[in-house]
Amino acid sequence: MRVLVIHGPNLNLLGEREPDVYGTQTLAQIDARIAQLADELKLDVRIVQHNSEGAIVEELQAARTACDAVILNPGAFTHYAHAIADAIAAIGIPVIEVHLSNIFARESFRRISVVAPVCAGTIGGFGVDSYLLALRAAVR
Amino acid sequence: MRVLVIHGPNLNLLGEREPDVYGTQTLAQIDARIAQLADELKLDVRIVQHNSEGAIVEELQAARTACDAVILNPGAFTHYAHAIADAIAAIGIPVIEVHLSNIFARESFRRISVVAPVCAGTIGGFGVDSYLLALRAAVR
Amino acid sequence: MRVLVIHGPNLNLLGEREPDVYGTQTLAQIDARIAQLADELKLDVRIVQHNSEGAIVEELQAARTACDAVILNPGAFTHYAHAIADAIAAIGIPVIEVHLSNIFARESFRRISVVAPVCAGTIGGFGVDSYLLALRAAVR
Amino acid sequence: MRVLVIHGPNLNLLGEREPDVYGTQTLAQIDARIAQLADELKLDVRIVQHNSEGAIVEELQAARTACDAVILNPGAFTHYAHAIADAIAAIGIPVIEVHLSNIFARESFRRISVVAPVCAGTIGGFGVDSYLLALRAAVR
Amino acid sequence: MRVLVIHGPNLNLLGEREPDVYGTQTLAQIDARIAQLADELKLDVRIVQHNSEGAIVEELQAARTACDAVILNPGAFTHYAHAIADAIAAIGIPVIEVHLSNIFARESFRRISVVAPVCAGTIGGFGVDSYLLALRAAVR
Amino acid sequence: MRVLVIHGPNLNLLGEREPDVYGTQTLAQIDARIAQLADELKLDVRIVQHNSEGAIVEELQAARTACDAVILNPGAFTHYAHAIADAIAAIGIPVIEVHLSNIFARESFRRISVVAPVCAGTIGGFGVDSYLLALRAAVR
Amino acid sequence: MRVLVIHGPNLNLLGEREPDVYGTQTLAQIDARIAQLADELKLDVRIVQHNSEGAIVEELQAARTACDAVILNPGAFTHYAHAIADAIAAIGIPVIEVHLSNIFARESFRRISVVAPVCAGTIGGFGVDSYLLALRAAVR
Amino acid sequence: MRVLVIHGPNLNLLGEREPDVYGTQTLAQIDARIAQLADELKLDVRIVQHNSEGAIVEELQAARTACDAVILNPGAFTHYAHAIADAIAAIGIPVIEVHLSNIFARESFRRISVVAPVCAGTIGGFGVDSYLLALRAAVR
Amino acid sequence: MRVLVIHGPNLNLLGEREPDVYGTQTLAQIDARIAQLADELKLDVRIVQHNSEGAIVEELQAARTACDAVILNPGAFTHYAHAIADAIAAIGIPVIEVHLSNIFARESFRRISVVAPVCAGTIGGFGVDSYLLALRAAVR
Amino acid sequence: MRVLVIHGPNLNLLGEREPDVYGTQTLAQIDARIAQLADELKLDVRIVQHNSEGAIVEELQAARTACDAVILNPGAFTHYAHAIADAIAAIGIPVIEVHLSNIFARESFRRISVVAPVCAGTIGGFGVDSYLLALRAAVR
Amino acid sequence: MRVLVIHGPNLNLLGEREPDVYGTQTLAQIDARIAQLADELKLDVRIVQHNSEGAIVEELQAARTACDAVILNPGAFTHYAHAIADAIAAIGIPVIEVHLSNIFARESFRRISVVAPVCAGTIGGFGVDSYLLALRAAVR
Amino acid sequence: MRVLVIHGPNLNLLGEREPDVYGTQTLAQIDARIAQLADELKLDVRIVQHNSEGAIVEELQAARTACDAVILNPGAFTHYAHAIADAIAAIGIPVIEVHLSNIFARESFRRISVVAPVCAGTIGGFGVDSYLLALRAAVR
Repeated sequence: MRVLVIHGPNLNLLGEREPDVYGTQTLAQIDARIAQLADELKLDVRIVQHNSEGAIVEELQAARTACDAVILNPGAFTHYAHAIADAIAAIGIPVIEVHLSNIFARESFRRISVVAPVCAGTIGGFGVDSYLLALRAAVR
Repeated sequence: MRVLVIHGPNLNLLGEREPDVYGTQTLAQIDARIAQLADELKLDVRIVQHNSEGAIVEELQAARTACDAVILNPGAFTHYAHAIADAIAAIGIPVIEVHLSNIFARESFRRISVVAPVCAGTIGGFGVDSYLLALRAAVR
Repeated sequence: MRVLVIHGPNLNLLGEREPDVYGTQTLAQIDARIAQLADELKLDVRIVQHNSEGAIVEELQAARTACDAVILNPGAFTHYAHAIADAIAAIGIPVIEVHLSNIFARESFRRISVVAPVCAGTIGGFGVDSYLLALRAAVR
Repeated sequence: MRVLVIHGPNLNLLGEREPDVYGTQTLAQIDARIAQLADELKLDVRIVQHNSEGAIVEELQAARTACDAVILNPGAFTHYAHAIADAIAAIGIPVIEVHLSNIFARESFRRISVVAPVCAGTIGGFGVDSYLLALRAAVR
Repeated sequence: MRVLVIHGPNLNLLGEREPDVYGTQTLAQIDARIAQLADELKLDVRIVQHNSEGAIVEELQAARTACDAVILNPGAFTHYAHAIADAIAAIGIPVIEVHLSNIFARESFRRISVVAPVCAGTIGGFGVDSYLLALRAAVR
Repeated sequence: MRVLVIHGPNLNLLGEREPDVYGTQTLAQIDARIAQLADELKLDVRIVQHNSEGAIVEELQAARTACDAVILNPGAFTHYAHAIADAIAAIGIPVIEVHLSNIFARESFRRISVVAPVCAGTIGGFGVDSYLLALRAAVR
Repeated sequence: MRVLVIHGPNLNLLGEREPDVYGTQTLAQIDARIAQLADELKLDVRIVQHNSEGAIVEELQAARTACDAVILNPGAFTHYAHAIADAIAAIGIPVIEVHLSNIFARESFRRISVVAPVCAGTIGGFGVDSYLLALRAAVR
Repeated sequence: MRVLVIHGPNLNLLGEREPDVYGTQTLAQIDARIAQLADELKLDVRIVQHNSEGAIVEELQAARTACDAVILNPGAFTHYAHAIADAIAAIGIPVIEVHLSNIFARESFRRISVVAPVCAGTIGGFGVDSYLLALRAAVR
Repeated sequence: MRVLVIHGPNLNLLGEREPDVYGTQTLAQIDARIAQLADELKLDVRIVQHNSEGAIVEELQAARTACDAVILNPGAFTHYAHAIADAIAAIGIPVIEVHLSNIFARESFRRISVVAPVCAGTIGGFGVDSYLLALRAAVR
Repeated sequence: MRVLVIHGPNLNLLGEREPDVYGTQTLAQIDARIAQLADELKLDVRIVQHNSEGAIVEELQAARTACDAVILNPGAFTHYAHAIADAIAAIGIPVIEVHLSNIFARESFRRISVVAPVCAGTIGGFGVDSYLLALRAAVR
Repeated sequence: MRVLVIHGPNLNLLGEREPDVYGTQTLAQIDARIAQLADELKLDVRIVQHNSEGAIVEELQAARTACDAVILNPGAFTHYAHAIADAIAAIGIPVIEVHLSNIFARESFRRISVVAPVCAGTIGGFGVDSYLLALRAAVR
Repeated sequence: MRVLVIHGPNLNLLGEREPDVYGTQTLAQIDARIAQLADELKLDVRIVQHNSEGAIVEELQAARTACDAVILNPGAFTHYAHAIADAIAAIGIPVIEVHLSNIFARESFRRISVVAPVCAGTIGGFGVDSYLLALRAAVR
């Protein structure tokens, strides 16, 4: 089973950016943990990070034939990037929305996800474990 | 580690109620799968179902000293039961919000969770797996 | 044909409570008139009154196999009790929403019914006759 | 007792128009059933259909002295025709609002009735029976 | 100077309709007072009443060449009849909006006038004097 | 192929009414250009203009059996005439919504079309060419 | 009959301030015309101008026993000065709201008058004639 | 004079629950202070705590004949429990709404009280003194 | 302990102004009762009334060093005078918001208090007793 | 005449993506039909597709001197990409907004176009014919 | 060049009032820095502080002929004082809006400035430097 | 001190694009003036322009270690680009928001800045001087 993990904008700053919100682990450390669990679960995982909406749209499009599932942390794009939502609806494979923090406990604009209605499911609030749980969810 | 699983209103009808939305498994079948994974994870799990907001508030209050974590599927209470949210905020142990279906893909009133801001995290859209993932999340 | 009539919260005060809005008949008098028409129409009718949302949810659930139709005056629950609406959607038998007064001619919060979208139909504004008309509607 | 039944805009297409929403009976068939029950109830009934708001306003005005009650299915005018609402408030005889379908289960704009606050009561969702129940309500 | 006075829907019921809101004078009595002042002011006045939006649109269109000013009491059309507003904007002669009652002291939907932005001015709250003041305003 | 063209309220004033918004061509000139293109395209075209919502509803109803497509410029009715929208939904033949001006570049109330959701498509902002493009669209 | 005329904030700049909106007459010229008509109508008129909400509240309070009617142009206070509205409601004599320009044809915030619901009537859009019409209205 | 004091949901956790918001006194300590002042004021006081809306509705109904006044801290029910508001309106004895904290200085959903419009008065923000002041208010 | 009592706009008309809303006691009578209780409680009380927002801001500023607490009935300023709210936040001594009537049972604009979030607490609905309860609250 | 056709995000998936909404033609097939009509109309057409907002902004900027008109299907960017709208306003050549589907008949967020107010006109709902009609519109 | 600096309500408390929001400098210290830079820039500066909206309106009116530019920190009046906005629009000289803190990072009501649309420009968030930058802006 | 100046989308068209809104200076001329003042102030300034949100996010990320402050004119991204706002919050160096025009005097969607709450301060309305003032602000 092939799984694509997409980290959205500013997630490359993890560990340095607002640690009280996002934790102290760097993206590299998170990616290592994802890779390790993927290994255990016999998943073929690819991990990318993009700061541009267009790049994420194109990753999703490419995943249409190359992957069986996508794990997407859309970052700030969660709240307005309808082009990403359209891509998810178009590609026909399950996409799991993931957030490190509990977006419902933060600023009010973060409570609206334009992506959620077209995702298979959503996992948020568990830090790096949000990704790991999503890997397990992708398997099933 | 002691975990309380609370099923909210109408979840006792699972398997019979709108199977296109909620799946064909009965609540008993779901509880069996939860119990089995709890066993594997060495968790001491108790499972209850309530149709009344007051009863859920009191389960949460009791869990304050009796449990280490709570997995809560608030059902329709998700969208207006502030008394449940206050109970979660009051008891000081992590509560994980769980939904069988993707509530963001349904009627617009289901997009607002008054419970989410005080929960540790949210998992939704994976059917019975939502509960199983929450068990794993509770462990970590 | 078996019909369940559910009176919602505060309807037990009828006749004493705000007679200019709800009329001077007591609930017992209304129940007598319902019973009399049920007799005429050869309906097997059961009548209950509850002040708790959870109790109404459970009455509805029980009616799923025990009744052919439900007549429900949700009282104040009309406007926010999504758990009752979910129960109605789940049980698969027709539920008729009934109001004594014209809820559209009163405070603005009373103009929204969260229950109406899942009911078979609505009858309101005719005092006790709202129930009697609902009995006739249930027959057809 | 004299009762005027007013069918609003597009109801003349009944039976042909969207049968999944409005049923397969034609307006003539509905009128026949109304006439038959009026006969049974010893009511003197007159039935009209209009596609124009002004025509309905004038029917209502004429009913002020010519009728004892009006049964009105305002169709799409339900949602914006304040001139019809003003006519109802002006004529001082009871007007019963009737709908074939459950307007609360349809598009969101159909949930607002500008006519309801000035009507005696509302009956909706029972197909042609909505009219028949309204006849009985008018009697009482 | 030629002035057209247009009474909108339901104003033909004046004197009989809700006298606590609209006063006890009949439309004929009001028209007599308008005619008398028009005489004093040497105005050539024509007075019409319509219950249909289309008829008012066509009166306004005809006034384009036949009149120098229009006094319009749009009644309930005030709040939604954009076609009347478009006619006023199109005809290029001053139109004065008149109301018998103070529409701002009534139901909230009456506080919005879609007609006001394209009228020369507005006079409301003075009963029949609203028309008489508008006649004087038209002169100047 | 038989096509009905309906001009809505105030369009009979074209050429005289606000030429900076609607252009200097009269309705007769527009109709001539429509007729000419219809000829080229071998379409049997009928053109009407109405200032009343009820009249447009009835034209649409009549087109149900008499025409293969309708081109409708609803003018101000675009924004509130749900009865016209219901007629379009009822008649089952394609209706194309047309506007001379770009309604999205004008007052904010003009940005909402209650008619658009039930039309086959929308063409706006091209002056008389909006109609001509709609004729071509109707053919295909 | 004693009438108080109150000019609200910034009206002392009339003639200099935005002449395309408010005309070229100075406040002194307007006051002269008011005084002249008051003379004709045998009214005892007093005219004041204030830029402070508190000062207008106190003028209104003093008018309670000293005047028979008030003509008030609240200027920008129209839209938020509830203390002025409370004073009007408290003093029990008729207050006529007056505007030079048509406030409904301007910025959207100017469409809400918190003062109008407690005034006897409103006259707006006629320049200085708004005041003169109000004087006549006060007489009747 | 007989006074009923009702503590709403989660107030049984006082002293343990979020002490920075609600203070460190336990409910038992608060009840002792209420009892002591009741004694001084010669009031016959009964104190209950409920986590269920239905239970509070029934306490209020019972108070209708058993008490002269009610002091109610509705907790989270303040913001949505219309059934409690209906009970207050129905029982015809004065009910005083009490809050420990200043609900206006907290989350925005806490600024709306559906209960306040039918209460005699409201006291909030003074900790346990809110109850004591309400006792004094009940006396007068 | 020094306490400042500030009566807001129009409260000087008490006893004369809308007695069904505000009662028949004059402000002098209310002040006498406040003074009497202050005496009993050994409070050094000063009482002022102002109709101007600026004057209330300056009273509050002066109270910063001259008083230990303020009792403020902001009248209509409650709903929009953010400058008063800023003054309360700035002076650092407790300010208690007081209302004679239950502002939640009146017009909808009165349900929003811009002052409440920065006050220590709120007491409303008890007539003159609102002030007396506030005095007792200030002591504690 | 030089015309640029810009396909927005996800349109490269046409034919594969949600065929019930967007039809079964691939983008290549659509481009072929556009090229063919351009040929007939003697238009010099260039066709591009982009998934990134910035790329579309830059295409529009380049068209400023290189083209005489632009045909733009903004896809999901229609609803939030103000930078594209600013580019359209800046370049001073006519831009025609095109949609394959009727965006007004879909999710509510699709009813708002931030691009429409600055476009010359809009054509939507005709599938590939939307582009072909736009080509003809561009010519005129 | 003559510049008027107006400090709005509560700014006289600077240095004492909420230093974490507004800094520890007193207004006198700020005025000294303004005067010093005015000297350097050869500006003739006058500085005033007012807690009353009416007083600020009158300062602005006087500045019409006495000054070349105004620097205004409207404090809380920013958010509702339309009379100040009208004065700015009326006087025809540039007014620069200044804020010490970043009003967009504070309570949501502070995000709306009714004054900004009629000011020449806005500078906020730089503490006392906001004034100094405004002085430089006024020069250019 | 190292300062990065970022020009957002479409600013490369300055001088050509809507000169009545943005002035006639080209971006090159503006950059020259920025460079000149930077020189005077001994600032090490780098200036970039981007039409893509992702590119701006990455410039901001790079500035985290390479610069001491950023001056950002987000152009249309001001109103929706939360990813840019997140980048600003993440990088921990002061960012100053700059606008050429007064965005509050333009279309209503331009009144909301999603970027402002995380910026150090905002300067707008002064044309190129907005940048120059921001340079001075950055120094302090």
